[in-house]
Amino acid sequence: MAKNNISDPMFDRVALIGLGLIGSSLGHAMKRGNIARHIAGTARSAQTLRTALDIGFVDSCHEDMAKAVRDADLVMMCVPVGISEKICQQIAPFLKKGAILSDVGSVKGSVINSCRPHIPQGVHFVPGHPMAGTEFSGPEAGFAELFDNKWCMLTPLDDGCPQATEKMVQFWKACGSNVEIMTPEHHDLVAAVTSHLPHLIAFNIVGTVDDLEGITEREIIKYATGGFHDFTRIAASDPTMWRDVFLNNREAVLEVLGRFNEDLSMLARAIRWGKGDQLYSLFERTRRIRKSILDYKQEE
Amino acid sequence: MAKNNISDPMFDRVALIGLGLIGSSLGHAMKRGNIARHIAGTARSAQTLRTALDIGFVDSCHEDMAKAVRDADLVMMCVPVGISEKICQQIAPFLKKGAILSDVGSVKGSVINSCRPHIPQGVHFVPGHPMAGTEFSGPEAGFAELFDNKWCMLTPLDDGCPQATEKMVQFWKACGSNVEIMTPEHHDLVAAVTSHLPHLIAFNIVGTVDDLEGITEREIIKYATGGFHDFTRIAASDPTMWRDVFLNNREAVLEVLGRFNEDLSMLARAIRWGKGDQLYSLFERTRRIRKSILDYKQEE
Repeated sequence: MAKNNISDPMFDRVALIGLGLIGSSLGHAMKRGNIARHIAGTARSAQTLRTALDIGFVDSCHEDMAKAVRDADLVMMCVPVGISEKICQQIAPFLKKGAILSDVGSVKGSVINSCRPHIPQGVHFVPGHPMAGTEFSGPEAGFAELFDNKWCMLTPLDDGCPQATEKMVQFWKACGSNVEIMTPEHHDLVAAVTSHLPHLIAFNIVGTVDDLEGITEREIIKYATGGFHDFTRIAASDPTMWRDVFLNNREAVLEVLGRFNEDLSMLARAIRWGKGDQLYSLFERTRRIRKSILDYKQEE
Repeated sequence: MAKNNISDPMFDRVALIGLGLIGSSLGHAMKRGNIARHIAGTARSAQTLRTALDIGFVDSCHEDMAKAVRDADLVMMCVPVGISEKICQQIAPFLKKGAILSDVGSVKGSVINSCRPHIPQGVHFVPGHPMAGTEFSGPEAGFAELFDNKWCMLTPLDDGCPQATEKMVQFWKACGSNVEIMTPEHHDLVAAVTSHLPHLIAFNIVGTVDDLEGITEREIIKYATGGFHDFTRIAASDPTMWRDVFLNNREAVLEVLGRFNEDLSMLARAIRWGKGDQLYSLFERTRRIRKSILDYKQEE
């Protein structure tokens, strides 16, 4: 949001590892806010690198990760959480002393545990998670406004450098985000509840519906209105990213899923036994929660 | 959609019983399409009647249902399915011979079973269900475009009058809808799958999340992005309407819920045991289904 034209860029060189939805949106947001003097990109596929350069949200592209991160003041890993450790191992020898290493993974505990041992002395690791996304993937999916007014959670290490954390707070604010600092454990619970469980349920229901006999896929596609249509949008999110989320936030996801299942059993029982009052009072409560969310968004 | 200015209105007098989201939208759509010479409205609350007249989607308003339906060529019950039977009983003595009686309930089997015995000889009952809605309720929530390009299902009785059914097909097309004719049983399965189960899940998840300890309601409201935000919208739908839907489509809803639960158990197991391939292949499949839906919508 906040343009930064009058002052120097916050970073001389930022390296983006991974140029999918989040990486490309970060590129656009940094361009918009004049946050980096030079943005270096790297990704697995040569096609992605060409596309990124064509669109112009990076200034240089590198097949070799080492070349992208060399001399970078900030290295952002924008990859599925399942490969953060491998990326860390590969780039560690080339990170500049004093550089900040950060990430955008939807799980923080497992990323911290797996990456921490590989990070060289003098490099500041500030794990983060922008709670923003769409159901689209790839370098063409990005746009500068993705993070505007969204929340970015930072989960600094116990022994982390406060100045590096503060710099990342400023970075995300310059990208349009609100920023919140919390522990990795609390983050992983919040994310399990507000994002991972809803996605799991959406993936599941779309699969269930597609499998039902007595109703054709053609009919489902044709009549996909209201509720189901929204679920299919959520269930169209990137498969690799989400596989890694569930595998890496297993405990928190299974915990909240257990609660969800208990409640669903009660609800099924209320339907079976015709307990209208019980259904009504739940539905009234969920309606109030929606209203609170809308009121909150208006207050902002 | 199709304006009907050059010809006479399809009906001389239409009675709308219930002036909530669907009733008021029908009023607007009939005005837009010049479908009725006179629209008479009735509702339980005097405030609703005043609002309806002020907005102007009805021509007259009646506290007495009998006065609204008298001389009507078409009587539309736009009420929660749980009270259709009572409405039928009350209006039966006042229905004109040759009139069409229809409804917009989200469940068809139970409505037909409960209403049929009360319908007088010479009145044609053509049950229907427009698959359209928003999370808003009441006479101010309606708008003429609600049904445009949506599907309306008609589930005529075995011994129903084909001309009356055809007239209702034309009516819904004039209101902007596509129309499909099917049996009540098939309708109730299709609706359970594409609409009732998604709503049930959304109501449940919003309740679960709100109940969790370790995370405050304030946090949930604050971080409600992506998945969860969409769920809260669905879970804000009218509580009375949805209570009645679940109580009246119990068998179909519990059947598809059973399938949903089986699949969810498999998914939880895959997460617990780290079966990444299984997760990935489900998520890829649900993404393809979304693509099919978008392709279908573009073909239209």
